[in-house]
Amino acid sequence: MSIYRDRVSRATALMGEHSMDAMILVKPANMYYLVGDGRLCAYAMITREGEIGMGVPQTDLADVRALADFDHVAGFDDEVGMIHSIAHYFKQFGIQEGIVGVEYAFLPKPRMGMLTHPHAKPEAVEPVDCTPLMSKLRLVKDAGEIERLQAAARVADAGMQRAIERIRPGMTESQVAGEAEYAMRQAGAEDFYRTYVASGPRTNVAHGTPTHRKLQPGDLVMIDVHPVVNGYAADLGRTVCLGKPTAEQEAAWRLYVDALERTIAKAATGVDMAELERTMHGVFEDAGHKEHIFGPPIHGVGIEFEESPLPAGHAFFHGEPAPPPLAAGVTIAIGNCGLYTGAWGVREEDTVVVGDGGPRLLTHFPRQLQVGV
Amino acid sequence: MSIYRDRVSRATALMGEHSMDAMILVKPANMYYLVGDGRLCAYAMITREGEIGMGVPQTDLADVRALADFDHVAGFDDEVGMIHSIAHYFKQFGIQEGIVGVEYAFLPKPRMGMLTHPHAKPEAVEPVDCTPLMSKLRLVKDAGEIERLQAAARVADAGMQRAIERIRPGMTESQVAGEAEYAMRQAGAEDFYRTYVASGPRTNVAHGTPTHRKLQPGDLVMIDVHPVVNGYAADLGRTVCLGKPTAEQEAAWRLYVDALERTIAKAATGVDMAELERTMHGVFEDAGHKEHIFGPPIHGVGIEFEESPLPAGHAFFHGEPAPPPLAAGVTIAIGNCGLYTGAWGVREEDTVVVGDGGPRLLTHFPRQLQVGV
Repeated sequence: MSIYRDRVSRATALMGEHSMDAMILVKPANMYYLVGDGRLCAYAMITREGEIGMGVPQTDLADVRALADFDHVAGFDDEVGMIHSIAHYFKQFGIQEGIVGVEYAFLPKPRMGMLTHPHAKPEAVEPVDCTPLMSKLRLVKDAGEIERLQAAARVADAGMQRAIERIRPGMTESQVAGEAEYAMRQAGAEDFYRTYVASGPRTNVAHGTPTHRKLQPGDLVMIDVHPVVNGYAADLGRTVCLGKPTAEQEAAWRLYVDALERTIAKAATGVDMAELERTMHGVFEDAGHKEHIFGPPIHGVGIEFEESPLPAGHAFFHGEPAPPPLAAGVTIAIGNCGLYTGAWGVREEDTVVVGDGGPRLLTHFPRQLQVGV
Repeated sequence: MSIYRDRVSRATALMGEHSMDAMILVKPANMYYLVGDGRLCAYAMITREGEIGMGVPQTDLADVRALADFDHVAGFDDEVGMIHSIAHYFKQFGIQEGIVGVEYAFLPKPRMGMLTHPHAKPEAVEPVDCTPLMSKLRLVKDAGEIERLQAAARVADAGMQRAIERIRPGMTESQVAGEAEYAMRQAGAEDFYRTYVASGPRTNVAHGTPTHRKLQPGDLVMIDVHPVVNGYAADLGRTVCLGKPTAEQEAAWRLYVDALERTIAKAATGVDMAELERTMHGVFEDAGHKEHIFGPPIHGVGIEFEESPLPAGHAFFHGEPAPPPLAAGVTIAIGNCGLYTGAWGVREEDTVVVGDGGPRLLTHFPRQLQVGV
């Protein structure tokens, strides 16, 4: 049995528990997990019996046949054709009433309206959210997935290395991002999520998307990369100083590294996400930085660079239940929160696989605050 | 009056027509247009009187004060804080009943649930979709916007140039994308939308996201770049052949260029989008390629690389009415559809400003099918 058919049979078991008769997936990460292909403007419909019908642009038929694992495929010309192909599968699969899972946390209303259009979905079929089901399914990574996550982490290390080798005063934040991205493409990334580079006072903002700000001598620079390799992502963040940091900056950075390492050390089977968060935040609080913490420090990493398990608060607002205690094979990034002092911030982030015997670090780029200029 | 206050006053006039008492924007492109800042995890609330309250992560207060144009700003610690800050603005602005616009075409259900949470929105305030209003507002570009679109187009040209200078058999599609992206970062892009590179048989797929496929001598390669410069995007696509194309490939490419140039020539004030589409598709049909067309050939370009005006069918499924006839200042990409023969496809795409006297081309990279290997 292919890994995809094995995953589909785990999915259908969960669908049984949730009384779902079918799911229609359009989120690329979910499609990729279950059928091996997550192309844009396409869908995969999965019945509780494990039968799979895909719909793709008609141009893509040969390509999807070579890549995905399914029983039926329909090519369509446009949105109306897509809607009709869904109706056709409902008929073919004999589903004229019951419950269909759709991705409420991914689809804005007009796109939801396409999948549940009266010309697509039979009136007596009720849509429900399949977000929690799909997140549960993807939560624990198998050996093949961990190998891909490791490959992505190596590419993240390569991207960070080139960014830090090349970084100089006078470069823009965006140019630093460009160095990391170029190295990641060279090293085997087929894609990447947005690279963050923030410098100087901008290291204090929560989401440091790169700008045209030119780096100054003495700046702190926060770099955060997220390559995708063979469908899987990694998450790596480092803060460096272009020259000699102040005593205060160095102390904050050392504290952050200490907090991160203590938190990573605790990432073992059975531990609660909230406990990891308390550990990390606790180190900051004990050092008098209670007012300088922003953001929950941990999130899952897999096909998406930020996925389940999400911290309880975030999970709720992403349509998911609070995460269960960590299981072996769950992969997380630790260090998603910054220590923000007002004038500047520091942050280091690594990708870690949870194991019975403790954590296994996937990202290995050395921690070093001061870089030569 | 700042450009942003001017835009807000145009927005409030439209809100009056739609009987909206306020809008809550979270889509970065919409926020950027109205207040000059479109950061992540933030919102801008605009009343019909033109009063603006923003909410941002508390770490971002100094940064947003330096960048955005607003009356009030609230910093929050997490989603719950964000919800409470929205409730506070409803109280402060004296809106306890009426109609609030929110972005239905952008927000999946859980995120919509945050903005309309009972602890955020007064029960007697009814949410409606503000997507059509915001698209209408952003449709015609002013002189400053066209300058930025021109700057983005120059950066797109620079990206395409490096990709085509460096392209060689043996490189992966992703590495070709990396060359374009690197040059765009160097030339002044602070961001870019996903770069598409498809080669060989993959030139026949509708969305050619780059893979690890290695380029072969004789391959067609389709490259599509979308840099963002000072907040504005451009859209540029080219197809090249690594060596000598077949007679069939050359004929198809020449036909495509002919269709594109005829369509660009028609992009004048008062012309309907559907007429441009008929022009382009008509050239293909007349040459016997009726079965080889996929996708509507035109979409708007602005803060987003793909925005209103959208072709009528697409617009409907994005929650918008069919686009009005083109007005001077509307900026569009022409060449979004491919000519897909089954074994391979060709496509060329340029960004064009509609004018009273005709079109003004913003992207200038030369059209050339054969490149040296």
